Amino acid sequence: MASQRKRKAVWGIDIGGTYTKVGLVTETGEILASKEFSTGAKEPFAHFISNLEKEINGLLSDIEELPEIVAIGVGAPNANSLTGHIEYPPNLKWGDKIPLAVSIKEVFGLPVAIANDANAAALGHMRFGPAKGMRNFVALTLGTGLGSGIIVNGELLLGAHAMAAELGHVNVDPNGRHCNCGLQGCLETYASVTGIKRTVFELLADMTEDSPLRGISFDDMTGIMIADAALEGDPVALEAFARTGFTLGNKMADIAAHLDPEAIILSGGLSKAGDILLEPTVASMEINLFNAYRNKVKVLVYNAPSTHSVLGPAALALS
Amino acid sequence: MASQRKRKAVWGIDIGGTYTKVGLVTETGEILASKEFSTGAKEPFAHFISNLEKEINGLLSDIEELPEIVAIGVGAPNANSLTGHIEYPPNLKWGDKIPLAVSIKEVFGLPVAIANDANAAALGHMRFGPAKGMRNFVALTLGTGLGSGIIVNGELLLGAHAMAAELGHVNVDPNGRHCNCGLQGCLETYASVTGIKRTVFELLADMTEDSPLRGISFDDMTGIMIADAALEGDPVALEAFARTGFTLGNKMADIAAHLDPEAIILSGGLSKAGDILLEPTVASMEINLFNAYRNKVKVLVYNAPSTHSVLGPAALALS
Repeated sequence: MASQRKRKAVWGIDIGGTYTKVGLVTETGEILASKEFSTGAKEPFAHFISNLEKEINGLLSDIEELPEIVAIGVGAPNANSLTGHIEYPPNLKWGDKIPLAVSIKEVFGLPVAIANDANAAALGHMRFGPAKGMRNFVALTLGTGLGSGIIVNGELLLGAHAMAAELGHVNVDPNGRHCNCGLQGCLETYASVTGIKRTVFELLADMTEDSPLRGISFDDMTGIMIADAALEGDPVALEAFARTGFTLGNKMADIAAHLDPEAIILSGGLSKAGDILLEPTVASMEINLFNAYRNKVKVLVYNAPSTHSVLGPAALALS
Repeated sequence: MASQRKRKAVWGIDIGGTYTKVGLVTETGEILASKEFSTGAKEPFAHFISNLEKEINGLLSDIEELPEIVAIGVGAPNANSLTGHIEYPPNLKWGDKIPLAVSIKEVFGLPVAIANDANAAALGHMRFGPAKGMRNFVALTLGTGLGSGIIVNGELLLGAHAMAAELGHVNVDPNGRHCNCGLQGCLETYASVTGIKRTVFELLADMTEDSPLRGISFDDMTGIMIADAALEGDPVALEAFARTGFTLGNKMADIAAHLDPEAIILSGGLSKAGDILLEPTVASMEINLFNAYRNKVKVLVYNAPSTHSVLGPAALALS
C-alpha cells in the first residue's frame, strides 16, 4: 500500500577503544544493517567523523527499503550526556573534551543523543533485552574494566553531574590493587577480565598446583583461557572465579542496599563464563544481603553477539 | 478579610522506638503546634492509635486560627510506603506487619502517607532544610543506627520493592563487627552513635593513654560524652572520631560512585560533634573519590532541634 507508514529507525553507534560498531535499528530492535570499523583512536577525531560518514553512507546504499531515520544514539567511554562531550577518555587520543554530539549532528542533520557506553547498554537491556518490562535494575559490563548503568523508575540515573554509576570504582579494599584511575582497591581491578587475570597471577604465586595457566604470560592470557581452564577443572582457574564471585557478590549486596533493584544484569567478556562466575557471585551476594532484599534480587547473565552492542545506543536514541 | 484563603497545613508524625513527635506544619514549614509523647512500644498498637488521637485533639484545641488540614505524613522505622505497613520493626512490639496508614486514616479521615523515617527526613531536608533546591542528594542519619534516604531527580528513590537506601547495611568488612541485622561489618556498626562507642571500647583496649572515657561503662557511655572528650583533646576520643570518619568517608565515596549526588547531608546524634566528625570524614571521602566526583560532592552537617523531626513526615504528606 502506497499509504503505508514507513517504519521508523535510528542509528546506533558504539565507539570502543579499538572498534566502532554502527547499525541501523528499528523501533522494535531489528538490526537492518550493521558494520564494524576501526575506531582510529590515535588518528585525529576528524578522521573518525569522516570514516563514520563513509560507513553510514555505505550501509544506506545497501538497504533496499529505507525506513524513516529519526535520530542517532552514541555510546562511548567517558561520554557525558549533558554536555555532549567525550571527556578525558583514557583510550582515545582525540583531545580532552571531544564535541562528539555536535560533530555528528553537523554531518547527518539528525538529533543526536550520547551516553557513557555502559549507560547506553542498560537502556538497550531495558528496551530490547533481558530487562524488558523492568523499571529498576543495574547493568554491569564486565570487560577490560567494569562499566555500569543504573535504571531507576524506567529512566537512566544520571545524578547531579550526569556522572552516576561508576561502580567499577567502588572500593573493595583501601590498600588493594592499583587502578588505572589512580585509586587503590577499585572493584574493576578484581571483577573484570583484567581483574580475574590479576587474581590468577596472584594464585599462581600462592598455590603449588599444576595449571595450564602456568604456561601463559600475563600479556598473552585472556578471559576465555581462564574460563576454559576452569571448565576443565583447573584448580587455579576455579579458585580465581570463586574469589572474583566472592568480591563481586559482596559489592552487589551493597548495590542492593543503595538501590533495591529488581535485577542485576551481568554482561561483557567475563560473564561468558556463565555459571562458573554466576554461582559464587550469587552465593556471596545472598550471604551479604540485608534481609529486606534476600531472595529478591535477580541476577541475570546476558551474552549477546557483539553486533548487538548497537542496540544500547539505539535505545538511547529512541528514549 | 473574610474571603482570605485559609492556610494549608498537614500533620507530621515521627514515630521512634521511645518517643513519638507530632506537629501541625504549614506548607512553608512553620510548626504551628507540636507535642512529644511516649510511643508505648511494648503496649498494644491500639493504645498508640488512641494516644495519637488524644494528643492531636489536644493540639487542635490549643490553636486559635485553624488552618485547612489536608493530609497526614508519618515517618517510622521499617515503614513501607507502598504497603502502608510497618514491617518487622525490631523496637516496636506491635506485630510483624502493622497496618499503620489505614489505621491512622480511619481515625482522622485524611489522606495518609507513610515512609521509613530516614526517607521522610530526606524529603524534609529538600522541602524545608539544607537541601532546598537540590534534586540529587543523600541524607544520612547517624543515630543509634545509620538511616538513609536518597533523592534522585527531586524524588525519593524507592527501588523495586520500596526498600531502597539501607546504607547502614553496606559492608565495611566481611569479617567485621556483628550487626543487629544478622550480618557482619555493616556500616552502622562503625558510623553511628553505637558504632563510635564500639570503636572507643576497642581503643580503650588497644591504647594505653589515660582518658576520661575509662571511667564510664559501655551502658552509660553516650555520644555526647565521646564528643565532649574529643573537644577537650582526649586522644582516645579523637582517634575514635578519626577512625569513624575514615570508614564513613570511604563509604560516602562509594555512595558517590553509585549516585553522583550534589550533596551528602549528615544529621542525627553523631553529627552533633560537628567538625570533629566532618574533617576526617571529608578527607577520607575525597581521597577515595573517583576523579569524576572529586571536589564536587558537598558534605553538610545539619543539626536541627528535635521538634523539627516532624518536618520530614510533613514534607512526605505535602509531596
